[in-house]
Amino acid sequence: MTANEQKLKTPDMDRLLGMLEGHRSIRRYTDAPVPPEQLERIIACAQMASSSSHMQAYSIIGITDPELRDKLAELAGGQRHVALAPVFLVWCADLSRFSDAVSSRGGELEPSTEYFIVATVDAALAAQNAAVAAEAMGLGIVYIGGIRNDMRAVTELLQLPPLVYPVFGMCIGVPAESPDQRPRLPLEEMYYENRYSPEKREERLEAYDEQYRSYIRDRSGGGRDSAWTQEMQGRNAYPPRKLTGLLREQGFRFDD
Amino acid sequence: MTANEQKLKTPDMDRLLGMLEGHRSIRRYTDAPVPPEQLERIIACAQMASSSSHMQAYSIIGITDPELRDKLAELAGGQRHVALAPVFLVWCADLSRFSDAVSSRGGELEPSTEYFIVATVDAALAAQNAAVAAEAMGLGIVYIGGIRNDMRAVTELLQLPPLVYPVFGMCIGVPAESPDQRPRLPLEEMYYENRYSPEKREERLEAYDEQYRSYIRDRSGGGRDSAWTQEMQGRNAYPPRKLTGLLREQGFRFDD
Repeated sequence: MTANEQKLKTPDMDRLLGMLEGHRSIRRYTDAPVPPEQLERIIACAQMASSSSHMQAYSIIGITDPELRDKLAELAGGQRHVALAPVFLVWCADLSRFSDAVSSRGGELEPSTEYFIVATVDAALAAQNAAVAAEAMGLGIVYIGGIRNDMRAVTELLQLPPLVYPVFGMCIGVPAESPDQRPRLPLEEMYYENRYSPEKREERLEAYDEQYRSYIRDRSGGGRDSAWTQEMQGRNAYPPRKLTGLLREQGFRFDD
Repeated sequence: MTANEQKLKTPDMDRLLGMLEGHRSIRRYTDAPVPPEQLERIIACAQMASSSSHMQAYSIIGITDPELRDKLAELAGGQRHVALAPVFLVWCADLSRFSDAVSSRGGELEPSTEYFIVATVDAALAAQNAAVAAEAMGLGIVYIGGIRNDMRAVTELLQLPPLVYPVFGMCIGVPAESPDQRPRLPLEEMYYENRYSPEKREERLEAYDEQYRSYIRDRSGGGRDSAWTQEMQGRNAYPPRKLTGLLREQGFRFDD
């Protein structure tokens, strides 16, 4: 029986959809290791995600060196789980392999914004397949955007060549926590028909703010009060990550 | 029982991983419709994907208008399945909602390259969850990068406001074909430990070219001969997609 013929039957389907719907980011793990063959299967699932023109424009760096982990944890803003997670992966957008392939056939790659998007999307699709595979195995994951705090330092530490940049990290391990799930924006605010339709955004965000505030209140035992729009304003007040300079140094261009 | 407690048992896990490992892009569909409640559950799964700082910086536009479908199919390079698929979604990177939230709290958004990456990644993670959910339901999907052929026309057709751009499309329907699975690059070429290690790339790509060539030969009944590096050079010889101008018009900046 090929994989293609392995139709999921309804109860399995419901469990799988329930798993996707039940996703939570996990930042605390037990000491249980993730065996190499399990990680290999996670990566194999990542590799089977769609890829623009079969370009496969990404690379994954598994960080096993504890010193390197400590440095990355610090660069990511002191996130201890980056140091402590059984597995930590850095997902890179990677046009260098594509460029090498083109060069080997006498061509030359223009590292356009289009290709920057292709590589970024390829990395993300593969990573999300890895996340789903890991969760199907009973593992928990969290994405680490913090590796973009100091992208230059991460690029140097991992010896990334031109046309490669680190998009995000990912911790994987056996969950040692079971956090609540943050409510998402209402469907009507995310999904439009035939044209972009933000007309009712203001009311929708107000309603969502209320829902979000009550979630935060419950979660903090009443000690915290925060609406989604407030958190977004707070997020925007962080010191901005300045990436264009490093990306240009890495050979990406935003000028076509 | 909460979704979090619905641990997948081993046989289900193997079926799910087999499903991820068995992914093929599907471009031909039966006439069977995708009922609205099924599409809603697919979108609900998409919404539960991780999102940077809970920003949820993407929007989805479902195209139900047949005329709009025809136009998009043509803009995507004459891809008939864009017109014919039971469902066609356009996944947009979207900072306009984030910007509105920040403004409503008296802040102002700088649409930096960092935020451009966040929105692009958010759209991709959500879309890949949608793809997995659809496949779990027995549906098939294909990503449509072709909507970036003429991003300006698509942006106008869908009335996308500033700080929104269409990243890719996605067709969904009941499969009416069962294509072979294209071999992926070898694991050693995609996954490195602790540092980027392309030293053996040349040999690896040669071996992969051989494997790819024999896959193409088998698939075409011996009529075609094409290696992966050749296809990459061919891909690079397409008329380049020039996106930066439109992206700047939409308010994205690549100058911080």
